[in-house]
Parts: sequence; structure tokens; C-alpha cells
Amino acid sequence: MSDDKPRSHGRLSISASIKPRELMTATARVKGAWCAKVITLFPDAFPGTLGHSLTGKALQERLWALETIDLRLFGIGKHRNVDDTPAGGGAGMVLRADVVAKAFDAAAIGTHEDRARWPVIYLSPRGKTFNQAMARRLAATDGVTMLCGRFEGVDQRVLDHYAVEEVSLGDFVLTGGEIAAQAIIDAVVRLLPGVLGNASSTEEESHSRGLLEHPHYTRPAVWEGREIPAVLTSGHHGEIEKWRRARAEELTRERRPDLWAAHQRRQENI
Amino acid sequence: MSDDKPRSHGRLSISASIKPRELMTATARVKGAWCAKVITLFPDAFPGTLGHSLTGKALQERLWALETIDLRLFGIGKHRNVDDTPAGGGAGMVLRADVVAKAFDAAAIGTHEDRARWPVIYLSPRGKTFNQAMARRLAATDGVTMLCGRFEGVDQRVLDHYAVEEVSLGDFVLTGGEIAAQAIIDAVVRLLPGVLGNASSTEEESHSRGLLEHPHYTRPAVWEGREIPAVLTSGHHGEIEKWRRARAEELTRERRPDLWAAHQRRQENI
Repeated sequence: MSDDKPRSHGRLSISASIKPRELMTATARVKGAWCAKVITLFPDAFPGTLGHSLTGKALQERLWALETIDLRLFGIGKHRNVDDTPAGGGAGMVLRADVVAKAFDAAAIGTHEDRARWPVIYLSPRGKTFNQAMARRLAATDGVTMLCGRFEGVDQRVLDHYAVEEVSLGDFVLTGGEIAAQAIIDAVVRLLPGVLGNASSTEEESHSRGLLEHPHYTRPAVWEGREIPAVLTSGHHGEIEKWRRARAEELTRERRPDLWAAHQRRQENI
Repeated sequence: MSDDKPRSHGRLSISASIKPRELMTATARVKGAWCAKVITLFPDAFPGTLGHSLTGKALQERLWALETIDLRLFGIGKHRNVDDTPAGGGAGMVLRADVVAKAFDAAAIGTHEDRARWPVIYLSPRGKTFNQAMARRLAATDGVTMLCGRFEGVDQRVLDHYAVEEVSLGDFVLTGGEIAAQAIIDAVVRLLPGVLGNASSTEEESHSRGLLEHPHYTRPAVWEGREIPAVLTSGHHGEIEKWRRARAEELTRERRPDLWAAHQRRQENI
């Protein structure tokens, strides 16, 4: 049946094009540039917010590449069905292993087989919680393939067969994986060389790693009767650093006992 | 100086319009419908992914409303500056208290003063970590105002003055708050009455609350030599439930020792 034939090749050939209009489906990939391949039922949702600001500028400058793979194209039959009812009953629909497999195969073209160099991720609340360490790990890969779920879930067999890593954005439920994918891509892309104009901004974050950031102030000096803390306008760099450190520790202790405990364990080990 | 005058009123009046074309800036708000007001330098990033699928359909059906408030319109001087260098020095720029205050004032029009009914949120890695309990709390409000940060941060005084709640999407750094706002809105909107077609889907999640979900399977019965676990096709509902429960517990124990420990504490208290 011709409907069963993946149409990936026609679609994916777009990535060889450099027309700006086609930014929405795939961008020309400069050799060596980090690449995100996103399998989704809503390719029009990309680049979305990633097309704006720093990530958008970096996309245009080809510091990274984005390719969307429309899962619907691999659907079965006239209606290109991608899902079916769950075995054992229950609410919702499950994405079919055979359909998702075809999308994974299409995404694999031109990628390294080693999952350490090119992770394949399924965005799901069941996964390992995404954090900055994972962002750094992903930023050091050649690229990543991400499957955005919708409905109830994905057939477990295709996750097992393709050694898929399940990643969760946090302990909440989204209508689909698209926004989670965008968050992860954003966190990764800003770590890529040349993306952040002011490199010292990431530098500074890594100094205070493990602590929440101190409060910020800027002009005007007095606003609604509230003054900027005097130490910050004193010019004493040592005092300023001490004040910021104390505030960061205070905030972390108050708001994030978990981070504070981990921080104290690290201090004890030094 | 005329540049200091907020232009919010002109902009905000759009929310009285019902032209579909204007969905991107503000949607007509049906009385009683949950409303998200987003203060951002990138209003064009909205509704973004929220305009698709279930959340997009619900937006068109006015089950919720979205209003973007362009922070740039409240900027100072000819160049409408919104930020300035941090007091005490350091990298990055800080959003000015006076500029952000004008945007908060504009957003406050038509909202309840009680922060329990209409929370004002700043999206920041320093905030309380967003989770499903917070999604449920926000879904029970009239609406929410969200400030999306960019640059280094926001002047602390405006956060104090407006009793702003800091919320973090997780322990990772994004280029801005826009994607975090979209994730939170998505998680909230799917909990609003009438948004999810199949209400039992949320029902089921709440049953398994505190545990990761069991694996899913669907047709075909055999794929790449892998069979659906026999119990799921047995028709024994009791056995199916037992199997799913055991897998959920197993997964949670393996992947999320933190959730597993919390689950065990709850079991002991019953």
C-alpha cells in the first residue's frame, strides 16, 4: 500500500535548501553545527519561540540547525493514523511502534549511531528530570533527536528497540512534548559556542552553581521610596562579592532546602 | 516626556476585539474564562505552540484567554530602554523597576487585587519549582500575570513592591521566560473545564499521582519480534491493574528515588 511508504525522503531533502522561508521545517545544516531533529504532529509549532531573540539569531547564523519531522507522514492508511487504543484498556491513545519507528529511521539519516554522540529522546513525565547538567551534556553532542508525545503515551517496544532516553521537563503534565522540546533546545543552544554575546554571563552562572542567584538592582537609585542596598554602590568589590554570596546562600536556604543540603555536602567535601 | 507615558491603553483595548487575526496579541475574554497576561519583549512568540492542538482549540473556543503586553512599549526615551547595568557591577543587564512597574500596572487593569485570585509571577530559576500542584492551584484562579525575564534579571524592588511570586520551570537556565510561561500556561489550561476532550485522562493521572506511569502498548500484537505483555491481552481487568501498578512502582523506584520515598511515606500514613 503506497500509504505505508514513508515520505521522509522528500521532506528531509528540504534540509539541503537554504531558502529562509523554509526555516520553519528545516534549516541548512553547517557541518559541525549542533542539530535538533524534532518528531512531532505539530511541525508548525517550530521554531516558535526559538525563532526569536538569541536562539533565533543563532539559528539564522547557522550556529545550530533545526529539522522537524512530521509524524503524520508516517501514519497508516488513508487517514494516516499514528495511534491506537491501549492494550489492556484505559483512556487515551497510544502512538504505534511501527509508525514511530519509521520516523526514527528517517531522523537517523546522517546522524551518528552512538547514542552518546546523538541521543534519541522521548519527552515524557516518566523520564529523568532535565537539568543544567543534562543541558551541558547535550550541548557536547553532535545533535539530538526528540520525539514529542501527544495522547496517552508511546508503545514501550519502540522506546526499548531504539534505546530511547526518556526525559521529563519536570513534575507536571503538558498536552504534548513540543513546549518541553523547545525548553530543552533553548537551554542547550545558549551553551553552544558563539550564541551568547556576553560569554561572561554563563561564566558567572557556573561560579554560583548550586546556589540561587543573588538579587539584582539597577537605576534609578531610589524608586517608590526603596533604595538600592548601599553596599552595591560603595565601589568595594570585595564587600559586594561578600554581600552577593550571603544573599545567594540565604535565598537558597529559604527557597530550596534540597539545593542547600547538596551545597553543604559539597562544601564539606572540599 | 511623552515617551514616558505608558501606551498600554491603546494596546490593551485590543482585548475587546474579537477579530481572529488579533489572536496573536490578545483574545476576547469571555467573562469567567481563565486568562493569562504575559509581559514580554517578544509578544510575537505568543501564542506559539499554545495556538496549536488542544490549547489552541480551547483558545479559539474562548475557554481561556491570552493577552500579551509588550514590555518595550513602557521603555524609556527614544530607544525605549527597558534595562540598565547592574548596581555593583557584573555581567548582563537588569530590567528597570520603573519600566516593569508600568507594565504590571497595565496588566492589573480588570484583575483582582487579591494575589490568591490573580497571582503575579516572575519566571526565574530562583523561584519555587513549578509542579502539578501549582498547576492545579493556578487553574483555580481567575487568571495570572506573568513577567518573562531576559538579560540577567529584574530589579528586586519591583518584585517586592508588587508581591511577585517567583516561579522556576526547573533547575536549568533558559534565554528567557517565554518558553517557561508557555509550559506553565499549557499545564494549567489542560486542567480547565472543557479543555480535555476525554476527561478520564486527567482522572487516571490523579489516581496514579505520585507514581510514574506504567508502560503503554498498542497494536500490532507483535512488532520486531517483540510481543505485548500477555496479561494486557488476557481480558482480566484485575490482573491488568495489578500489573500496571507493579510496573509503575518499579519504574518510580528505579528512576525517581525522591518520588518513591515520598510515595512510601504517604503509604505509611494511610
